[in-house]
Parts: sequence; structure tokens; C-alpha cells
Amino acid sequence: MEFAKVVRSRRMVRHYTGEPVAEEGLARIMDTARRGPSAGFSQGLAFVVVTEADLRSKIAHIAEEPEYVRRRFEPWLSSAPVHVVCCVSEAAYRRRYEEPDKRKPSGKPRAWPVPYWYVDGGCALMLLLLAAVDEGLAAGFLDLDPQGYVQLRRLLDIPEEVVPIGLVTLGYPAPDRRSGSVARGLRPLGEVVHRNHWGGA
Amino acid sequence: MEFAKVVRSRRMVRHYTGEPVAEEGLARIMDTARRGPSAGFSQGLAFVVVTEADLRSKIAHIAEEPEYVRRRFEPWLSSAPVHVVCCVSEAAYRRRYEEPDKRKPSGKPRAWPVPYWYVDGGCALMLLLLAAVDEGLAAGFLDLDPQGYVQLRRLLDIPEEVVPIGLVTLGYPAPDRRSGSVARGLRPLGEVVHRNHWGGA
Repeated sequence: MEFAKVVRSRRMVRHYTGEPVAEEGLARIMDTARRGPSAGFSQGLAFVVVTEADLRSKIAHIAEEPEYVRRRFEPWLSSAPVHVVCCVSEAAYRRRYEEPDKRKPSGKPRAWPVPYWYVDGGCALMLLLLAAVDEGLAAGFLDLDPQGYVQLRRLLDIPEEVVPIGLVTLGYPAPDRRSGSVARGLRPLGEVVHRNHWGGA
Repeated sequence: MEFAKVVRSRRMVRHYTGEPVAEEGLARIMDTARRGPSAGFSQGLAFVVVTEADLRSKIAHIAEEPEYVRRRFEPWLSSAPVHVVCCVSEAAYRRRYEEPDKRKPSGKPRAWPVPYWYVDGGCALMLLLLAAVDEGLAAGFLDLDPQGYVQLRRLLDIPEEVVPIGLVTLGYPAPDRRSGSVARGLRPLGEVVHRNHWGGA
């Protein structure tokens, strides 16, 4: 699909038909998701692709889907044939920047005014969401509360140094109730894009 | 351009011909960059698009380009006709999650185990980099050291509550010396994509 069309067709989908996703399509999506940039090419990113029905139903429980459905939304997680847990490792970045070509001449550890593991995690997330659309599928993204992440980590054996940053659901879209947030609309372009100076048009 | 081709053609380009970027193309790129997801549709992202020659040369100085060129790289920033400063606002997210539809029933402020302003900033960055390729241009990304961000903030009047997370350079690609990091290669797929459990194939 044309890039511009992929970007403009993408939206968060929170209900799926349950029809399974073909393995080849899923492999293409995951292959795209790992092609984002990373600071120092640290590639401190990882994904756990969950397709086992029992694990998915446990994840739906961890994400408090019954409470969500009580608020008259569709069963988002349990209708999605694929859950992808997106993870980042700060430690991988710190290790990379201690290698000879990255170490500071002063020997001092690098300051990280911006935690690039999260930024690069966002790049990977964006690719994953777009790749789903390109594959004729739909995707959604959700986060968990801190206790949910503890449970998810235990369920999927995610190591200590790896931090899950959220879940992507993949599948064929079914009609869903849109998030109320969408009604806010896109912010005016002039508030988002400044020219030469902040506030400049 | 086809989405898959855009993703696979993208690489960090650190030297440009200096040929200016057409305003219509730049407008399309920036329009794409703001179409990423954001938690609660907070849209706490902003860009400062710098095309003024004097500002760009000051930014090249702030980014220590002379030192970079001494290490036998090309003049990355001063050859790029467009610099885009990518910014995020944590405060915008916190304000959004105090609105009635997002406030917790307990009244307690939301915990942010993951700082989504950085993740969403990464989504916007990814779209910006891909949109450049789709427009027939090339893009690069660089960060500054903490003191550099202080100077950049002052130069471009970036408000206190907004955090610059890095700079994207845009232009027509010229031959450049590749970053040594690229020689590391992509991590094996099995280390990046796990199935059902961490370590699962």
C-alpha cells in the first residue's frame, strides 16, 4: 500500500473478528517492526508475540477487560488473535555506550537527558502499527497499570532488565466504539509546527 | 511510494547537497509527522522547523559540528537545508489525564510507569523520517548533550515545559561516511521477537 495511505488509514482498533492472522503476514509485520532507528544502533528492543489462546485470555484478565466491557466497550483483547508485548531495555543502551567507540574521552558515563530507549520503542511501535495496516489488518495499543505489568512480566517470563511499555493487538477489524479522546480532534497545525522560532509561522 | 519500500530505503543520512526543500514537500512531511498516536490523544508534541540560514549555522555550532568534521565526517548540519527540532511536553499529558474522562475514580493522579511523552515522540519521529523518504528526501537524527539543549532552547525560544528530544535534518542526500554503529548489523530475529514466552520461538 502507498505510504501516505497507510498513515492516513491507521487508527486504533479495539475490537476484532477473531479470524486468525496468517503466520507469513505476522512475520512480515514483526520484520518491519525491528527496522526502526536506535541510539548507537543499540537495538535494545524486543517483542513477545502471544498467539496461544490461554495466554491471551490471561492477558485480557490482567488488563481488566471485564471492567472495560462493563463500561460498554467491546472485548478488545479477547477478540484479538495476536497480542504483541513491546519491550525496551535501558541496560542494553547503557552497555552499548560503554563500548570503546561510544565511551566518552573523560571516561564518565554518558548523561541521558532523553531516555532514548522509550523514544526508540515509540519508533518500533509506530512501524508495528503501520505494518499491520499495510498487511490489511488493524491494530490497537494499550498500556497496563503498574501492577498489570508485574503480572504480565511473570506470565511471559520477561527478564528483570527488560521493561514492557505496552501491548499491541492485531487482527481483522470488527465494528468498535471509538475512544472518546478522538473527538478532541487534531490540534491546530500552528500549535504543533512552529517555524524558525517557537510561535513562528 | 510503497510502504515496505519506504521502510527499507530509510537510513540515517549525515550529509546533504544543500539543495533547498520545496515548501509543499516540507508541509506534507510535517502534516504526516503529527499523525502518530498519543496517550489519551494528548498530542503533547511539537516541532520547530528551522530553515533560516543564520539559525541553522548557530545550531551546527551548538551541536559541535566543527569537532565532528575534525573527526573526518561531513558537515552534517550545515549542509542540511532544514532542521526539525522534535519536542515533547510531559505537562500536556499530565493535564490531559486530569480531565474528567481520564481522572481516576480515586482522585489520585495517574501513575506513569512508562513516560508516554517519549514513546509518542518516537512515533512522531518515525513518521517524520519515513515521510522524508516518501518525499524523495533523506533524513538524519541527532541528539545534543545537556548543555546543547539549554542553548537550543534559548536560541529558538522553546518554553520551559517543553523538552526537545533531538534534531532531524532533512535534505537531498550527498555521499556520507556511515556511522560505525551500522556495522553491528541487525540483531538476530530470535533475540528480538519471542513467541508466547520470552525465549520462545
